Amino acid sequence: MNLEFFSNRRSIRRFSDKTITDTLLNDMLLAASHAPTMGNMQLYSVIITRDDEKKKALASAHFSQPAMTGAPVLLTFCADFNRFVKWCEQRKAEHGYDNFQMWMCAVLDTACIAQQFCTIAETQGMGTCYLGTTTYNAPLIAEVLNLPERVIPVTTVALGYPAEQGEDVGRLPLEAWVHTERYRDYTPAQIDSVYAEKEAREDSCRFVAENQKENLAQVFTDVRYRKPDNEYFSKVYLDFIASHGFPLPQ
Amino acid sequence: MNLEFFSNRRSIRRFSDKTITDTLLNDMLLAASHAPTMGNMQLYSVIITRDDEKKKALASAHFSQPAMTGAPVLLTFCADFNRFVKWCEQRKAEHGYDNFQMWMCAVLDTACIAQQFCTIAETQGMGTCYLGTTTYNAPLIAEVLNLPERVIPVTTVALGYPAEQGEDVGRLPLEAWVHTERYRDYTPAQIDSVYAEKEAREDSCRFVAENQKENLAQVFTDVRYRKPDNEYFSKVYLDFIASHGFPLPQ
Repeated sequence: MNLEFFSNRRSIRRFSDKTITDTLLNDMLLAASHAPTMGNMQLYSVIITRDDEKKKALASAHFSQPAMTGAPVLLTFCADFNRFVKWCEQRKAEHGYDNFQMWMCAVLDTACIAQQFCTIAETQGMGTCYLGTTTYNAPLIAEVLNLPERVIPVTTVALGYPAEQGEDVGRLPLEAWVHTERYRDYTPAQIDSVYAEKEAREDSCRFVAENQKENLAQVFTDVRYRKPDNEYFSKVYLDFIASHGFPLPQ
Repeated sequence: MNLEFFSNRRSIRRFSDKTITDTLLNDMLLAASHAPTMGNMQLYSVIITRDDEKKKALASAHFSQPAMTGAPVLLTFCADFNRFVKWCEQRKAEHGYDNFQMWMCAVLDTACIAQQFCTIAETQGMGTCYLGTTTYNAPLIAEVLNLPERVIPVTTVALGYPAEQGEDVGRLPLEAWVHTERYRDYTPAQIDSVYAEKEAREDSCRFVAENQKENLAQVFTDVRYRKPDNEYFSKVYLDFIASHGFPLPQ
């Protein structure tokens, strides 16, 4: 397979009416489950949403992002220790999984299968978009999807056949994020250099103008990912994790 | 691309001497960087280890796993807000990224590019194995790789051309982890059912016998992922995250 398939990958936020059959969806999920998983524990569950009422209920958790409201299928990928712990308890095996380290294992398992699923769907001509809002309103998502203790929403994928090409949003050059043998911290000139192309893009300039900011960094800090929101949702998510099976160490 | 490519995926822990050129490695990393990333922020860095001395220094952090000691290349994937925050500070943009929510964004970005990289490497005939120990001994890894504040090791990939086929370790059936519209919690009979095939495997029976346990679940709880280790490394990792740029909410 050509590397260009991966380099040309774009997020899709508008979907056609073409149906994704249950058979195809299940086949793709099953293939994705062969993604790497810690100790072959498969510490995740996926909840499929096709029902319009459920989508409406989830929409407020995701701030009604266009990528989700028009998607025929939503997949909520959850870190799941509920199944594994129940198995241990039924086998008289005394588990020690109610902690942050095992939560991290489950998060990485969950992210791996989610990403593998997206790649697989894209090889089949579908489009995907992650909903990063999943970690913001996890308590509401858990309520809508009936998640028990030890099952925590991590990410959501909007899935469908594309009704748009998707935008080429660009990426930083390799030297911005790849280090050889040791991390070499950035000088101010290097920071200017690795962000230069991103800042010069036409869409970046438009974001700056539309939001009446001085530069692109301020669009991120003052508009897109604001401190009060980040701090508020940090507390919400961490409280949810800690009270739903993964208490923090004292 | 056929779904079987993904279903036949196996971890590789023994590697041949065949060299991976810098050009090919860089091409694969660049293609992987087109994996989805939150707001196109690319909140990660990758540190390439080829040097034998560096590998030795990393080996103790990874408990000298066979998958790493013979790999020609190790890639440490780190959640990285250092670069983005430096950019914000140079642009007089007041960031609010020193918190758990943004740490999670960076973790998911990092896991996505790591998984995309593994898939890409596998399409090019290479083999990969994740080292889950990265979240155990993060402070030591950070020291060896010279990681500054706001750069946290998340996962490591051992990479090379395969010198083995890899084991087919099996996966749970789809109904074990896929839920339609709402999570349906497991009855004891369902737990027995979804783990039956896994427990009956020849390798599972061998693990149970070798470790003199009553069943496979006890191999996980008493041997492979033990409570005291999980709790100890929970504290180590969380302290490291909290003291290196992502303090917990009060």
